[in-house]
Amino acid sequence: MILETIQSPEDLKPLSLRELNTLAEEIREELVRTVSRNGGHLASNLGVVELTLAIHRVFHTPEDKLIFDVGHQSYVHKMITGRYSRFQTLREYGGLAGFPKREESEYDCFETGHASTAISAALGMARARDFLNAQYDVVAVVGDGALTGGMCYEALNDAGQQKTRMMVILNDNEMSIAPNVGALSGYLTKLRVSGRWQKAKKRVRHLGQWPVVGKPLYRVIHGGKNVMKSLVMKDSEIGFFEALGFHYFGPIDGHDIQSLERTLRMARETPEPCVIHVLTRKGNGYEQAEKKPEAFHGTPPFYIETGGRIKLPKAPSCGHMAATTLAEMSREDPRIVAVTAAMKLGTGMDHFAEEFPDRVIDVGIAEEHAATMCAGMAAGGMKPYFAVYASFYQRCYDQMIHDVAMQRLPVTFLLDRSGIGGEDGQTHHGLFDLAATLPVPGMTVLAPADAGELVDMIRWSGRFDAPCVIRYSKYLPHPGEGEKHAAFVPWRWQTVREGGDAVLLAVGSMVCKAMEAAEILAGEGISVRVVSCSTVKPLDERLLGSLPEGTPVFTAEEHMLSGGFGASVLQYLTDSEWKGAVRCFGVGDAFIQHGDHEKLMRDAGLQPDQMAGRIRTVLRKEQP
Amino acid sequence: MILETIQSPEDLKPLSLRELNTLAEEIREELVRTVSRNGGHLASNLGVVELTLAIHRVFHTPEDKLIFDVGHQSYVHKMITGRYSRFQTLREYGGLAGFPKREESEYDCFETGHASTAISAALGMARARDFLNAQYDVVAVVGDGALTGGMCYEALNDAGQQKTRMMVILNDNEMSIAPNVGALSGYLTKLRVSGRWQKAKKRVRHLGQWPVVGKPLYRVIHGGKNVMKSLVMKDSEIGFFEALGFHYFGPIDGHDIQSLERTLRMARETPEPCVIHVLTRKGNGYEQAEKKPEAFHGTPPFYIETGGRIKLPKAPSCGHMAATTLAEMSREDPRIVAVTAAMKLGTGMDHFAEEFPDRVIDVGIAEEHAATMCAGMAAGGMKPYFAVYASFYQRCYDQMIHDVAMQRLPVTFLLDRSGIGGEDGQTHHGLFDLAATLPVPGMTVLAPADAGELVDMIRWSGRFDAPCVIRYSKYLPHPGEGEKHAAFVPWRWQTVREGGDAVLLAVGSMVCKAMEAAEILAGEGISVRVVSCSTVKPLDERLLGSLPEGTPVFTAEEHMLSGGFGASVLQYLTDSEWKGAVRCFGVGDAFIQHGDHEKLMRDAGLQPDQMAGRIRTVLRKEQP
Repeated sequence: MILETIQSPEDLKPLSLRELNTLAEEIREELVRTVSRNGGHLASNLGVVELTLAIHRVFHTPEDKLIFDVGHQSYVHKMITGRYSRFQTLREYGGLAGFPKREESEYDCFETGHASTAISAALGMARARDFLNAQYDVVAVVGDGALTGGMCYEALNDAGQQKTRMMVILNDNEMSIAPNVGALSGYLTKLRVSGRWQKAKKRVRHLGQWPVVGKPLYRVIHGGKNVMKSLVMKDSEIGFFEALGFHYFGPIDGHDIQSLERTLRMARETPEPCVIHVLTRKGNGYEQAEKKPEAFHGTPPFYIETGGRIKLPKAPSCGHMAATTLAEMSREDPRIVAVTAAMKLGTGMDHFAEEFPDRVIDVGIAEEHAATMCAGMAAGGMKPYFAVYASFYQRCYDQMIHDVAMQRLPVTFLLDRSGIGGEDGQTHHGLFDLAATLPVPGMTVLAPADAGELVDMIRWSGRFDAPCVIRYSKYLPHPGEGEKHAAFVPWRWQTVREGGDAVLLAVGSMVCKAMEAAEILAGEGISVRVVSCSTVKPLDERLLGSLPEGTPVFTAEEHMLSGGFGASVLQYLTDSEWKGAVRCFGVGDAFIQHGDHEKLMRDAGLQPDQMAGRIRTVLRKEQP
Repeated sequence: MILETIQSPEDLKPLSLRELNTLAEEIREELVRTVSRNGGHLASNLGVVELTLAIHRVFHTPEDKLIFDVGHQSYVHKMITGRYSRFQTLREYGGLAGFPKREESEYDCFETGHASTAISAALGMARARDFLNAQYDVVAVVGDGALTGGMCYEALNDAGQQKTRMMVILNDNEMSIAPNVGALSGYLTKLRVSGRWQKAKKRVRHLGQWPVVGKPLYRVIHGGKNVMKSLVMKDSEIGFFEALGFHYFGPIDGHDIQSLERTLRMARETPEPCVIHVLTRKGNGYEQAEKKPEAFHGTPPFYIETGGRIKLPKAPSCGHMAATTLAEMSREDPRIVAVTAAMKLGTGMDHFAEEFPDRVIDVGIAEEHAATMCAGMAAGGMKPYFAVYASFYQRCYDQMIHDVAMQRLPVTFLLDRSGIGGEDGQTHHGLFDLAATLPVPGMTVLAPADAGELVDMIRWSGRFDAPCVIRYSKYLPHPGEGEKHAAFVPWRWQTVREGGDAVLLAVGSMVCKAMEAAEILAGEGISVRVVSCSTVKPLDERLLGSLPEGTPVFTAEEHMLSGGFGASVLQYLTDSEWKGAVRCFGVGDAFIQHGDHEKLMRDAGLQPDQMAGRIRTVLRKEQP
C-alpha cells in the first residue's frame, strides 16, 4: 500500500503517474472508510484528491504556505502530511480535527472553518513574505461556493491592486454545499463552456509544430514563462478576475494530475496574483456521493455499500420543525419568507421550500448581505426569517445591530446549532450569540427548552413586530408525537419543578439537564426549583422580583459565562439590591475543542451530576 | 429663492433646466453655510447635488424607494424632502440627523451609516415589492468607495442571478474617503476612459440622422427601451457588472441634470437589475473642498472663505499619537505594519505613512478582510495593527474570533472612537466593542486613561505576542508636552486617588470623569478611592481580591452596561464570594442619538455630578 509509505509530501515526489493514480484510489478508500465510521465531510474531500496531490508535488510545504478555505476539504492534505496513522481518530474527542489546526501540524499554517477567509489570509502571508524578504509561495484553495462570500472579493480586490504574488486555486465543483447560487456561478459556467484558455493552449501547441518560430514559443510556455495569458485574452476581454487584477488560468480538469501539475508550475512562475480555475466533481470516485453530493457534504456515519445512514434520526431536526411551521404559517400569511446562506439543508429550510419554493431564498455564503437583505424585506412589509447556524451569525453581527436592531425591523434570526456543537469543533460551536445580542437595544432573545416550544415560538414570532433571535441547539429534546412539550409563554419564565432550597434558572437546552440535576439532589433531600427561562431578553422581572432573598440562585446556559444569560440575571439582581448567592453555569474562558457533545458538555461542567455537585457545595456553605 | 419653495420632490418637477441649475447653486450655498457652522460631511454632498435632483425628478418618492449608501451624502435629499427649514439644526442635539432616519421622514425609507449596505437593503425591498405585488422602483446610490465592501458584491451577485428589477447608481468620484484603493477602482477608471457606452450612444445618435432606419431606432432608445446595452457591448465583453448579472449604463456626467435624467428614465424601463455609472466630483462647486476633498469629507466647523478650521485642535489626536508611536517602533522593528479600512486620515495613520508609506496598508472599506489579512500577516511573522473605528470593528467580529483569537495571532486592534461619539450619532458610537471582545478567550483588552497612556500601551504591545484590543475615545484627555500622564502597567490597575468610603473602578475615558466625581464628593466629606482599570481583560484579580468587604464598589465605562467591564467585575466579585454592594455606571439599554458629546454623556448618566449623586445615594442606604 503506497499511502502507508507517505510520511511527508516529499515522499510523493518520486512517484510515477501510475503510482499516483493508485495512491489516489487508496486515499479515496480511506476517506470513505473513515468518514463512514466517524462522520464528516466526504464529498468535498473526494473531489480534491488529485488536486491535493498535485499541489504537494509542485510546492514545497511547509515552507510554501497552503491554505484550504473552509478547511473541511483538508482530509487528503492531512493524510499525506504525516497524519495518516491517526486518520482513524478523525473528529473524535482528542483525535485529529476535521479542520486544519496549527497545533496539529506545521503543514497547517492557518486555521479555517468558516468560509471565504483563505484569500485574505494568503494575501496577509504573501505580504509578510515580501516585507520580510522571504521567498516562499502562498496558495489558497477556495471553492466556488466560498467565492459567494464578500470577503473573497475584498481580498481579490486588495491583492489585485497591489499585485502581490500569490495563487488562488478556484476549486469549481459547481456547488458550495448545495448547488451554487449567485450570478457569478453563471459566469464561471460560461468560462467552463467557453474553454477559452484551453482553446488558446491548443492554438499554442499547434504553433509548437511550426519549425522555427513555433518551437521556442512552445518551450517558453511549457517552461513556465507567463506569456500564455497575453495570448489568451484580448485587451477588450476584461473578465471578472481580470477586473480585480488577477491573471486567469483555466479551466483545468481537476482529476488529471499531469495537467494540474503543468498549470500549477506555470502559475508558480507568474510574478503577479493569479487564479487557477480547476474543475472537480464533488464525491468523485464514490458512487453514492457522486449521486448525492449534498447529502455527503457533511454526513453522519453511513453504510459504505448503500450510503444509508447507520443511525436514523429519531425525530425531525429542529430546523425541519421550524421549516414546517413556517410553511404552515405561509398558507395564511403571504409575508413569511425564509433566507439561508447556502445552508438550505443544514437549517432544514428545504422542508419549507418543498411547499413554497419561492419563499426560501438562498443568497450563497453571504451572511452579511443576508441580514441586511432581510432588513430590506422587512422594511418592504415582509416577515423574513434568517435561518443560520449560531457560529455563522457572527458574520452578520454589525448588520444585526446596524440594519435590524437600530431600525426595529421585524427580522427573526433562527439560530440553529447554538450551544456546544460536536465533532466540527471550535469554529462551529455557537457560544457567542447571547453575548453578541443581549447588549443590543430592542432585541428580543428566545431559547426553547424543546422542539415543541420552538414551534410555539415561531408561530408567536409571526405576529411579533420587532427584531427577534431564537436560539436552539442541535441536541434539543424532541417530545414525541402527541407528547407534552414545553409551552411557550412570551415574556414569562415558567417553573417546571418546585423546590425550596435553591432556584435553578435554566435556558433552552439546559432545562432538561437542570431537571436531571434537581432529580439527583432530590435523592439527597435537597429540593431545587427549576425555572425554564425561554425569554432570555427581556428578563422576566416579575419572576426575578419574587425570588425569596437568601435562597441561592443558579443559572445554566450553553453559552460563554461572559456576556451570557447568567451575567444578565446577576446584573439585574444586583441592581435591584436582591440579597443572596448567585452562581452561574456556563462555558468558562477557553475555546471548546471537537468531539462527542456529551463529553464536551462534561468538559464545560454542564452535566447534571456536575451541576448537582456544585449546588450541593454552595448550599452547604450558605447554611449557617 | 427657489430652495425655500421646495416642500417636497413634486415641487421639483415643473422647474426648467435653468431653474434647476439655480436651485443647485442655492443648495450648494446652503450646504457650505450649514456645514461650515455645524461640521459634517461636505465634499460628498457637494458632489451629488445634481444627481439627487435628477433622481427626485425621475422617480416618485416616497412610493419609489431611494436608499443612500453610507447615508452621509443625504443632506441634499433632506433639503428637498420637506426638511429645509430644519436644515440649520443638522447634527445638533435634538436636530436633524446627519444620516437618513426613518422617524425623521417617510422619504428616508432605510437607515444607513456604515458602508456597503444599500444594495442588500434595496434588493430586500425589491423582493418585498415582487412578493407583495407592488409596483414601485427601488434605487440604491452607492459610492465607488463603498463598492470595495464585500457586502456590495454579495448583494450584486444575489440580485444579478435572480434578475430582480432594481437600480444601483454607482456614484463614482474616484474616492471613497481617501483616493480609492482596490483593483476594481482601476477597472472603473478604464470604463471612464474608454467611454464605451458614450461612444456607442453617439453612434446611435448618428444613426438617428439617417432618414428611415435610423429615426425609429433613435426614438426607441430615447423613449427608454432597453436596446442600448446590446448595441454597446459585444457578447465577448463580459465585464465585472455583467459577470454579476447586471446591465451597465455609463459613464454619465453626474453634474449634467439632463443627461442624468435621460439615463435614469432609460434604466427605469429596464426589466432587470442595472448599474448606472455616474461620474461626480467630490466637493464640486466649493473651491476649498474641490482642492482637498479628503479634508472636507467629514469636517469640523470652518471659515467659508479660507476653508480653515474655526477651532484648531489643541493636541494631536489619539490616532495621530498612535501613528507616531508606530513609526518610532518601526525604526527598530521591521515587523510593524498598520492596516486601515479606508480611514487612513480618520485613524491618524497618515502620520505613520509619512515616514513609512509602505507600512500603512489601506484595504478599502473591507473590515472583514482587513482583520483576516492581519491574521495572515501575523502568521507570516509580522506585527500588524488594525486601526479601525470601534463601530466599524463590529464588521470584523467573526474574523476577530475565528481568525485572530482562535489562533492566538498577535494582531492588535486599535479601536479609535470607542465610547459615545458625537454628532455622527447612533451608527457611529463605539458602545459594543467590550461586549464583543470580553467573552472571547485569549483576547487582551486595554483602555488608556489618557493619550499618554495610549502611547505606553502601543509601545508595550509591540513586544506582546497575542491578540490585543486597545480602545480609546476621541475625547480622551491629552496631557501637554512634558506633563505627567497615566503610566501603563500591564495587567495591573492603579489607584489614582485614595479614599475609604467607596471604590470607583473606572475604565479609559471615565477615569477623568471619575476623578471629578470623587472631587465633588470630597467636598461633602465622602472619600472615594478611584482606580484606573487600564487592563479590562484580564481583570486585575489581585486588586479585586484586596477590596475591603462591605465598602461599596462602583464601576464606570463608556460602554453598554450589558456585557461590559462592570458586568465582568460583578461576575468576578460574585464568584469569589465578595460581600458588598456593586453598582455600574454605563449606557443603559437604549441607542444613543446624535449631538454634543457632553450632552450625550449626560443622557447616559455618565457626568461627574450624576455619578456623585448616585454614589451618595448608595452610601446613605448602605450605612446602617
